[in-house]
Amino acid sequence: MATGNINVSVENIFPLIKKFLYSDHEIFLRELISNATDATLKLKHLTSIGEASVEYGNPVIEVKIDKEGKKLHIIDQGIGMTKEEVEKYINQVAFSGAEEFLEKYKDSAKDSGIIGHFGLGFYSAFMVANKVEILTKSYKDEPAAHWICEGTTEFTLEEADKQERGTEVILHINEDDKEFLEEGRIRELLTKYNKFMPVPIKFGTREEELPLPEDAPEDAEPEKKTVDNIINNPEPAWTKQPTELEEKDYNNFYRELYPMQFEEPLFHIHLNVDYPFNLTGILYFPKMTQDMNIQKDKIQLYQNQVFVTDNVEGIVPEFLTMLRGVIDSPDIPLNVSRSYLQADGAVKKISSYITRKVADKLSTLFNNNREDFEKKWNDIKIVIEYGMLSEDKFFDKAQKFALYPTVNNEYFTYEELETKIKENQTDKEGNLVMLYASNKDEQHSYIEAAKEKGYEVLLLDSPIVSHLLQKLEGSKEKLSFVRVDSDHVNNLIKKEDEEISKLSDEEKEKLKADFEKVIPTEKYTVQLEAMDSNAAPLIITQPEFMRRMKEMQQTGGGGMFGMGNMPEMYNLVVNTNHELINEILNSKTAKKQERLIKHSLDLARLSQNLLKGEELTAFIKRSFEMVK
Amino acid sequence: MATGNINVSVENIFPLIKKFLYSDHEIFLRELISNATDATLKLKHLTSIGEASVEYGNPVIEVKIDKEGKKLHIIDQGIGMTKEEVEKYINQVAFSGAEEFLEKYKDSAKDSGIIGHFGLGFYSAFMVANKVEILTKSYKDEPAAHWICEGTTEFTLEEADKQERGTEVILHINEDDKEFLEEGRIRELLTKYNKFMPVPIKFGTREEELPLPEDAPEDAEPEKKTVDNIINNPEPAWTKQPTELEEKDYNNFYRELYPMQFEEPLFHIHLNVDYPFNLTGILYFPKMTQDMNIQKDKIQLYQNQVFVTDNVEGIVPEFLTMLRGVIDSPDIPLNVSRSYLQADGAVKKISSYITRKVADKLSTLFNNNREDFEKKWNDIKIVIEYGMLSEDKFFDKAQKFALYPTVNNEYFTYEELETKIKENQTDKEGNLVMLYASNKDEQHSYIEAAKEKGYEVLLLDSPIVSHLLQKLEGSKEKLSFVRVDSDHVNNLIKKEDEEISKLSDEEKEKLKADFEKVIPTEKYTVQLEAMDSNAAPLIITQPEFMRRMKEMQQTGGGGMFGMGNMPEMYNLVVNTNHELINEILNSKTAKKQERLIKHSLDLARLSQNLLKGEELTAFIKRSFEMVK
Repeated sequence: MATGNINVSVENIFPLIKKFLYSDHEIFLRELISNATDATLKLKHLTSIGEASVEYGNPVIEVKIDKEGKKLHIIDQGIGMTKEEVEKYINQVAFSGAEEFLEKYKDSAKDSGIIGHFGLGFYSAFMVANKVEILTKSYKDEPAAHWICEGTTEFTLEEADKQERGTEVILHINEDDKEFLEEGRIRELLTKYNKFMPVPIKFGTREEELPLPEDAPEDAEPEKKTVDNIINNPEPAWTKQPTELEEKDYNNFYRELYPMQFEEPLFHIHLNVDYPFNLTGILYFPKMTQDMNIQKDKIQLYQNQVFVTDNVEGIVPEFLTMLRGVIDSPDIPLNVSRSYLQADGAVKKISSYITRKVADKLSTLFNNNREDFEKKWNDIKIVIEYGMLSEDKFFDKAQKFALYPTVNNEYFTYEELETKIKENQTDKEGNLVMLYASNKDEQHSYIEAAKEKGYEVLLLDSPIVSHLLQKLEGSKEKLSFVRVDSDHVNNLIKKEDEEISKLSDEEKEKLKADFEKVIPTEKYTVQLEAMDSNAAPLIITQPEFMRRMKEMQQTGGGGMFGMGNMPEMYNLVVNTNHELINEILNSKTAKKQERLIKHSLDLARLSQNLLKGEELTAFIKRSFEMVK
Repeated sequence: MATGNINVSVENIFPLIKKFLYSDHEIFLRELISNATDATLKLKHLTSIGEASVEYGNPVIEVKIDKEGKKLHIIDQGIGMTKEEVEKYINQVAFSGAEEFLEKYKDSAKDSGIIGHFGLGFYSAFMVANKVEILTKSYKDEPAAHWICEGTTEFTLEEADKQERGTEVILHINEDDKEFLEEGRIRELLTKYNKFMPVPIKFGTREEELPLPEDAPEDAEPEKKTVDNIINNPEPAWTKQPTELEEKDYNNFYRELYPMQFEEPLFHIHLNVDYPFNLTGILYFPKMTQDMNIQKDKIQLYQNQVFVTDNVEGIVPEFLTMLRGVIDSPDIPLNVSRSYLQADGAVKKISSYITRKVADKLSTLFNNNREDFEKKWNDIKIVIEYGMLSEDKFFDKAQKFALYPTVNNEYFTYEELETKIKENQTDKEGNLVMLYASNKDEQHSYIEAAKEKGYEVLLLDSPIVSHLLQKLEGSKEKLSFVRVDSDHVNNLIKKEDEEISKLSDEEKEKLKADFEKVIPTEKYTVQLEAMDSNAAPLIITQPEFMRRMKEMQQTGGGGMFGMGNMPEMYNLVVNTNHELINEILNSKTAKKQERLIKHSLDLARLSQNLLKGEELTAFIKRSFEMVK
């Protein structure tokens, strides 16, 4: 038996790293600036623990375009490298100097913010450059080094006369990648990936007006001076403690994140946890619209202040992807598939931590200022309702703050509502019946009828409401939600007392037969009801169960298979105590009776938004005639 | 000056390959079966050119789960390896045997279907296995070899007594990855990635009933035999020539691709090109619904019959992502970002080739069987209209086959339509005015009015139609599209002749003032028109320009900034020749006049679907009173 060692030749692996390591070429700049940041932070750490006896100062990282020379420069004032260190760190693919540093200064350096991991980032330069130079001078008293590589595995390394401490990487940009010599493109990348990195990044200069002296004449021009143009905010709000921040700081940071967003966020949630995972961040509740998809993908994920992605699917529970803000965690495995993420234990914990924090914040807002919470309800309900539907733990917590608005703009919690309506809205079987409308306009006449009975009518208009009602009914005993137009008001909540019909049984039979001669019975079922004589003569209703199943199918998931395609079926409720009905019953001619029934049916259909097209045109024409 | 060589140590790179090479663990199976396929195809090639003097036979690849032993076996009957070859190909990370083979047999092997590229696939086994064994026997007369590696960079290699030709890879599956010991999971992966690979893949066995002999008694049970369960179709339709295939073969293949899809495709397009890139495939037009997003992401991308992704964004022009089917091309760079893809020259050529083929097919269908094409129009129009909007070349080609349906279900090309309506629908400025409706029901009375004038009314109801009309108007001189409800019918196409008003100028002034006293003037502009006395007394219209701008904003892009939020403004067209208007003008009391105007306005609003909520309830109540 022979043993041996697997080996890898740099000739084989190098082209793969250049071509396939990162799917996006633009990543190179993020990687090189991460390296420059690490070089700076390492020096900071060494001076802080007294291992480097140089002045740390106020180092910046500079990015410079040399368009004519087709070069891009990334210059730092960090730790620098000696010739030996270049040999060690640069010429060895996949050897991570950052990891080595963290290992060496284990205890003191763990919060230093060092970014690097795999020792590969530098090589991403070759995705866009055919030649890369490094000019570097260590903080140690040794001569500077100059390394050149033209994209093969060969390099040259010699002494150089660079005097300032730090490293300069010079990229000779490929013809194909000359977009990276455009100022606009580079600014775009710096803004995308490096906007909140911890070392100031200089990109060009800008003019700044000096303040005028107090005694300056009125027409004095302010003097200008040229200052460095720093593109990043090295201390973004989420890296601070909540106690250091005021409301306006959070709002300002929101505007930094979303400069094109004009509306203020409704409120924020500051995330800050060390154990069992490390995570900081700020989430914002923006004003929501009805369209859930448009809202998504606004949360940005960072690792040690380096932008990673704005797709947080799998990390943040789905219902919270409608929020905005920032999450920063070194503990989220990147470059792995979403399905893998969802199965990862640490990520699951992160997701449930975020859910809990959001629920707690909502609870606090509700308890501290209910009036304000009610005002915001319509803007946040879609998130809360979606959360209640998709996460059982959130459902439980939300019982305390989820609100049920009425058509009169009152807001109740479930418990309050139950207490309020129990007496009047319990049917003879002992079921508590909650009445609701989905549209104040379209269901206006039905709402009015229910209000006249002293019933509370909720206004539940989210697109997912039928799913939520189904879940609420399943979670409580003897509770049902019924839409106001699903039956005649007397039948919505069935009680003992019944109105007495003015008609005899024979008359009723005849009336029913008369109606069925005229109306399309495949669409309408005639239902005679003895109602108040002041109520409408005819009402069209659609049974709750069937309507809700159809709705659930349309919004996806749930509902009964095939229900979405069922034809629409309605009940035609005839008020046997109404004068007009009496007139219909006793019409002198069949022709007059037909005319009366048809016109009345048209009016009832109008009320349910069912009269359309040719029939509506005919109705309107007929009505204009009647006016004359 | 010193020169040197960049180097890479296997200890550093190996963990990265295991962890980050592929973001999805499940990819390992695809990679190992690709290797097994290559081993088989290499042998096939060598026997075909007489370099291997063994029987090629009918080799299969077998996948076997040993649940108890926690092992997964992938066994091929291909070319096999000698001990020396294992040393060369396996122990050298990123050395590609496939590339070497293709290089060696350059001319003869270029169509052999060899898949491998980078020599990394095998190592993906370590993503799911802590120990991997290879048992392999070359087709050459040499002893078998047995290689074992436990996930470090160390391996053992010894002779073995395997007799059958070929290679067996044995994965000792990690505790964390034991999903890959489940039959259901493995079948899922084989179906996803390997369903159309060129060598038969056996996964388990199944019972098959033997046909009964002719003279068997009636109650005879058919004998059963156990046969290999082959999970793939090694010769999928797209690998054949169009001349070898009939209509039913295409439909059968559609069902193979989408087993859960019950509707037949409308038609197919066979793609087949060698130069300047290599691409085969079959695209299908399915029945479309109005929701464009639901349709997307059904096209599958393959490379040499290995499934790669079902996200073809960037490769197929966006408007064609609503189609279904398969594209197979070794020339599409994978593992690169979408933005890179879109800039890639080869990919651009592929995209425009596909567009051209689709346009040609549509043109042929239109010319060969117009009746059938018209029948399918409503199912395909969304793709064509979206294509016309987004690709100028497609817009030009589509002029020949894009159809404009009328509300009477006639279908015209643009040219035909122009010829037909030119005379009657050119206004006094010489503009050709195309009238259209977006909804036959809602705009019924307006459509009827236009039809009475002898106008053709198109039915254009796609969600993107306002954008398309904008583009059409921009592409022709003196053409405008006007929706039937955007003005009174007499004004839709302005001609010389005008109806004479029965009213004097003073009467008109008084009438206008009377109306403006009663109606909300911030919403309605009163417009007096002398119309036929049989036309409606009042009509509400909404000017084309404003409505279209609002629609364009709502469907994204185009339109004028802020238009989406403009309040709705209407014109109230008063027919000064109508009897009712005369009655209003001459009402005895102001109260009666107000009542008449209000009720008439309500009727006009009904016709535009503008009467809602409380106002509708009041209208209905009032109407019931009137019936009595």
